[in-house]
Amino acid sequence: MKMLQILFLLFILLSSTNALVQDFCVANMKGPDGPAGYPCKTEAKVTADDFVFTGLAKAGNTSNIIKAAVTPAFVAQFPGVNGLGLSLARLDLAPGGVIPLHTHPGASEVLVVLHGSITAGFISSANSVYVKTIHKGDIMVFPQGLLHFQANAGRKSAIAIASLSSPNPGLQITAFALFGNNLTSALVEKTTFLDDAQVKKLKAILGGTG
Amino acid sequence: MKMLQILFLLFILLSSTNALVQDFCVANMKGPDGPAGYPCKTEAKVTADDFVFTGLAKAGNTSNIIKAAVTPAFVAQFPGVNGLGLSLARLDLAPGGVIPLHTHPGASEVLVVLHGSITAGFISSANSVYVKTIHKGDIMVFPQGLLHFQANAGRKSAIAIASLSSPNPGLQITAFALFGNNLTSALVEKTTFLDDAQVKKLKAILGGTG
Amino acid sequence: MKMLQILFLLFILLSSTNALVQDFCVANMKGPDGPAGYPCKTEAKVTADDFVFTGLAKAGNTSNIIKAAVTPAFVAQFPGVNGLGLSLARLDLAPGGVIPLHTHPGASEVLVVLHGSITAGFISSANSVYVKTIHKGDIMVFPQGLLHFQANAGRKSAIAIASLSSPNPGLQITAFALFGNNLTSALVEKTTFLDDAQVKKLKAILGGTG
Amino acid sequence: MKMLQILFLLFILLSSTNALVQDFCVANMKGPDGPAGYPCKTEAKVTADDFVFTGLAKAGNTSNIIKAAVTPAFVAQFPGVNGLGLSLARLDLAPGGVIPLHTHPGASEVLVVLHGSITAGFISSANSVYVKTIHKGDIMVFPQGLLHFQANAGRKSAIAIASLSSPNPGLQITAFALFGNNLTSALVEKTTFLDDAQVKKLKAILGGTG
Amino acid sequence: MKMLQILFLLFILLSSTNALVQDFCVANMKGPDGPAGYPCKTEAKVTADDFVFTGLAKAGNTSNIIKAAVTPAFVAQFPGVNGLGLSLARLDLAPGGVIPLHTHPGASEVLVVLHGSITAGFISSANSVYVKTIHKGDIMVFPQGLLHFQANAGRKSAIAIASLSSPNPGLQITAFALFGNNLTSALVEKTTFLDDAQVKKLKAILGGTG
Amino acid sequence: MKMLQILFLLFILLSSTNALVQDFCVANMKGPDGPAGYPCKTEAKVTADDFVFTGLAKAGNTSNIIKAAVTPAFVAQFPGVNGLGLSLARLDLAPGGVIPLHTHPGASEVLVVLHGSITAGFISSANSVYVKTIHKGDIMVFPQGLLHFQANAGRKSAIAIASLSSPNPGLQITAFALFGNNLTSALVEKTTFLDDAQVKKLKAILGGTG
Repeated sequence: MKMLQILFLLFILLSSTNALVQDFCVANMKGPDGPAGYPCKTEAKVTADDFVFTGLAKAGNTSNIIKAAVTPAFVAQFPGVNGLGLSLARLDLAPGGVIPLHTHPGASEVLVVLHGSITAGFISSANSVYVKTIHKGDIMVFPQGLLHFQANAGRKSAIAIASLSSPNPGLQITAFALFGNNLTSALVEKTTFLDDAQVKKLKAILGGTG
Repeated sequence: MKMLQILFLLFILLSSTNALVQDFCVANMKGPDGPAGYPCKTEAKVTADDFVFTGLAKAGNTSNIIKAAVTPAFVAQFPGVNGLGLSLARLDLAPGGVIPLHTHPGASEVLVVLHGSITAGFISSANSVYVKTIHKGDIMVFPQGLLHFQANAGRKSAIAIASLSSPNPGLQITAFALFGNNLTSALVEKTTFLDDAQVKKLKAILGGTG
Repeated sequence: MKMLQILFLLFILLSSTNALVQDFCVANMKGPDGPAGYPCKTEAKVTADDFVFTGLAKAGNTSNIIKAAVTPAFVAQFPGVNGLGLSLARLDLAPGGVIPLHTHPGASEVLVVLHGSITAGFISSANSVYVKTIHKGDIMVFPQGLLHFQANAGRKSAIAIASLSSPNPGLQITAFALFGNNLTSALVEKTTFLDDAQVKKLKAILGGTG
Repeated sequence: MKMLQILFLLFILLSSTNALVQDFCVANMKGPDGPAGYPCKTEAKVTADDFVFTGLAKAGNTSNIIKAAVTPAFVAQFPGVNGLGLSLARLDLAPGGVIPLHTHPGASEVLVVLHGSITAGFISSANSVYVKTIHKGDIMVFPQGLLHFQANAGRKSAIAIASLSSPNPGLQITAFALFGNNLTSALVEKTTFLDDAQVKKLKAILGGTG
Repeated sequence: MKMLQILFLLFILLSSTNALVQDFCVANMKGPDGPAGYPCKTEAKVTADDFVFTGLAKAGNTSNIIKAAVTPAFVAQFPGVNGLGLSLARLDLAPGGVIPLHTHPGASEVLVVLHGSITAGFISSANSVYVKTIHKGDIMVFPQGLLHFQANAGRKSAIAIASLSSPNPGLQITAFALFGNNLTSALVEKTTFLDDAQVKKLKAILGGTG
Repeated sequence: MKMLQILFLLFILLSSTNALVQDFCVANMKGPDGPAGYPCKTEAKVTADDFVFTGLAKAGNTSNIIKAAVTPAFVAQFPGVNGLGLSLARLDLAPGGVIPLHTHPGASEVLVVLHGSITAGFISSANSVYVKTIHKGDIMVFPQGLLHFQANAGRKSAIAIASLSSPNPGLQITAFALFGNNLTSALVEKTTFLDDAQVKKLKAILGGTG
């Protein structure tokens, strides 16, 4: 009897207060995005699978010129992080591999080296350079929006996890932004001091036009 | 003439600048929730009633084992607080009544005692305990996400208002989280050090399975 | 033996992870304020008393012309709310009492009527007026930064608690801002359309100069 | 060959990480507003024109009693600022012109004088008055939610740009809030100390009723 | 000559705009903490070492009853993350090891399994249970403030990295909060429904008093 | 008598509620910076001058190779914007002048053209290019953290005001970050695909070493 009463009470207590409580907001990727993220999947349809992502278990394909790969687990790939203020990515760096200079416009990053050694660095607004070679188990932080890079510092493959302070951190690779689109060579040259020949050469390589 | 001109000016001034201005965002509870809350009800349909909630005027039913009741005025009950960063709840504690140990994952709380005396407390991450018996008119603050409780400290009924720093603060009652769902007894025991008999006894009482 | 090991483990676990963890930040009011609030009192000196405030238990003195009083429990009076995103105030309204038109530049407000009846309202950017007379137990929300007021609507005293979404909400009473300082009458008149005689009369009453 | 490989790699890198990345969120004004702003226009339909607004190029019409005009570029007029934390407005002040006392409930403001001289000021919660006459090229900041005004201080027209810390700052003009709507004269008088004759006179001028 | 001019210009440009720019804020742990974190170390004294932490490279000591260890890299251990919105921790789980039920009051968490298999889960405000066994390379997200746990699901040791959405996430282990401090047994029992014998037994084990 | 009572009441009301209220937080630049900004100057010492900055009235010196100048009014130059979420800068572009490709790691920007015509553009994470030539009175928005530039598009000088959504937006000029510091040529080349000769040429011009 007593037990039933407790049960009843808590049922009432919980059902009244928690109907529609938002602890999480698994993204409904069909919904329109908004400044704070995607609309939430109906809670009744959410399962444990929504909070798990297995796409980082497999190495990215580094059989390419930069000998490196980035595998993201941002909100687009892992809707469970929507609204929760963080996301991850996996970095694979074959020997000689490099993640070119880039920024995340919307997040700070902490990198954890899982295998191998990585030379990483960032440049501040005050134009100071902070570079270190870090090893398995070491971590390094890259403040939001600043140019940074990671390069394999050893003879074997390196793997790292990048932890980012936003479900949707963005990624702007400088070389691709300069040479891989239709920004005219004239404007690239004027705004970077690079030579015309250099710009045109890299535009040809990276698929840029103009 | 002068008057008409002022009138005209201000009409223009206001109509141009304030079309679609968002001072508030009364929740359209039919819309999909998002990380920042619910979509807004069309402003033209908003009336003063949207900003008033009368559901806290009546005492909750404390004829139960914990001799207590929580009546929320969160966004689900009171759509007018959507996006405004705060909400309320009413606590009724009959003699001997207690609000079991719980957390609000998304809000800090300030409790105001309206009638009677309440022994309340919280536990910090550093595992310090902060307990006080407070009386009519006194207030106590419980920092976000920390375990806290309220128990009637007198012989008569106690009433309190909980003010919360989110329209959607959440509520996780520890006993119900441990014993009132389908988390297996084995996992509960392993992760809490509780004895099997204790876990099974409370699972039976609180409706848990597994 | 087993017990000692658990104890030891948890001691280690806790002491390593929780040293310097910030669950709360009781204001050290001697420290310089900053954009996010005051520096924190040393955790070792924090006691349960820091989280309790008894100053709202006593009625404010309403023996004055507006027959009303506001008693704040903002961070200046209640350092325990520093950094926690909310604060409270008590309103006492004798028969005929009124809290003049005002704004809180930094917070939304939810008002709870504890005794009596109150006619309250606010005006939106779109210049719509939302007014209601609310009674004991009713609550009303006033969105951040908008002009609002509360007036005793009954024949007996009214008491209310205002819950605010900031530890430091600010308070700007329009009449006092217009007539209770050294803003010149010429500027007041030019920027409000009020007559010179009216401005000068109220400046005399409310202590304004210029 | 090498080039094609780089191209391929970067294409893969970019296409996998940036699908659905949100750098910006041009408002779809047909979508329902939410606490954080409007839903985003589909990125595929966004063009450079979405980030440009030409409506501030033309002077506002100051042929009116306050001899002034405000032209906003808030999210309603300029959907490109949705979610980006800022917006602008243009102020035109003919000789003798004035922007009446007002607040922005949701934003701080920095004013830049482009032509002429402006006497501007604000009043703090502590009821201090901060007034200055500023000239072409000078800037002045008005903290969020506080009453402020701008008046032409010279003999020629003045122009200024107001920069605001929100895409949707709101605008509440005190005189219009007091006298330009259906808030009853009785309530206005009670909550402002103004005389009945004054209130009724301005209600007549500014279109108020009640 | 041209070169010198560019150099000179950029020097001027940078030195004027970047003096005192804050890209990061390495914590000065001697300064008083505040609601937003610690004061910044003087930029001139910041080196690359401030952004690197090597303390996660070594396994925690799991020779204890829970056969597990948590090694944090929060702001207290890794001052470089101050103000940057994220931090990390390393989990070591020997066979049979478990991280007991706990919450982070101030952060969401994403767990990456580096070695072995882990059964992890969390409980929502709506009292739903989300449990999964995840393997090397898999990730799982735990929303802010909710009870969660991790247990070794295999026969070999497991290692994981927890990524947290705050430099100072806090950690409240339920068993320790209930039984490892001076909260009286009477209050524990009243607020959790646990039996007196159970509470006293665990208080003895976990070092609690009262 | 009545008047004195009102005066007394409001004095009490104001003095009790507003002591230590924070409407603004003029930076004390001698205090240590923190994640949310600088500590506040004592309110008693704050004057209207703290809210005014005259440093943008004068044209920057464009007698240099880029024929351009940026004059900031960030918190370092204009302490009055501390904690208020916005700041400004003035751009002067002589004929042929250009503000090289750069990012603001911590702010979105809205540009207002005051004189002349400017070709401006930004590149998104998805590598789309948004370029427009805008004229006197037009405004353009650049989302946070993305690469953007401004170039004089006419034959006469151009002037613009940049409004930024942070008191401390940061500024990272790509060319200077690549070639104006001690980041080794080897790392620059590896992370940008630029040729060694190009890197060394620009390092010589822009003062870089290594």
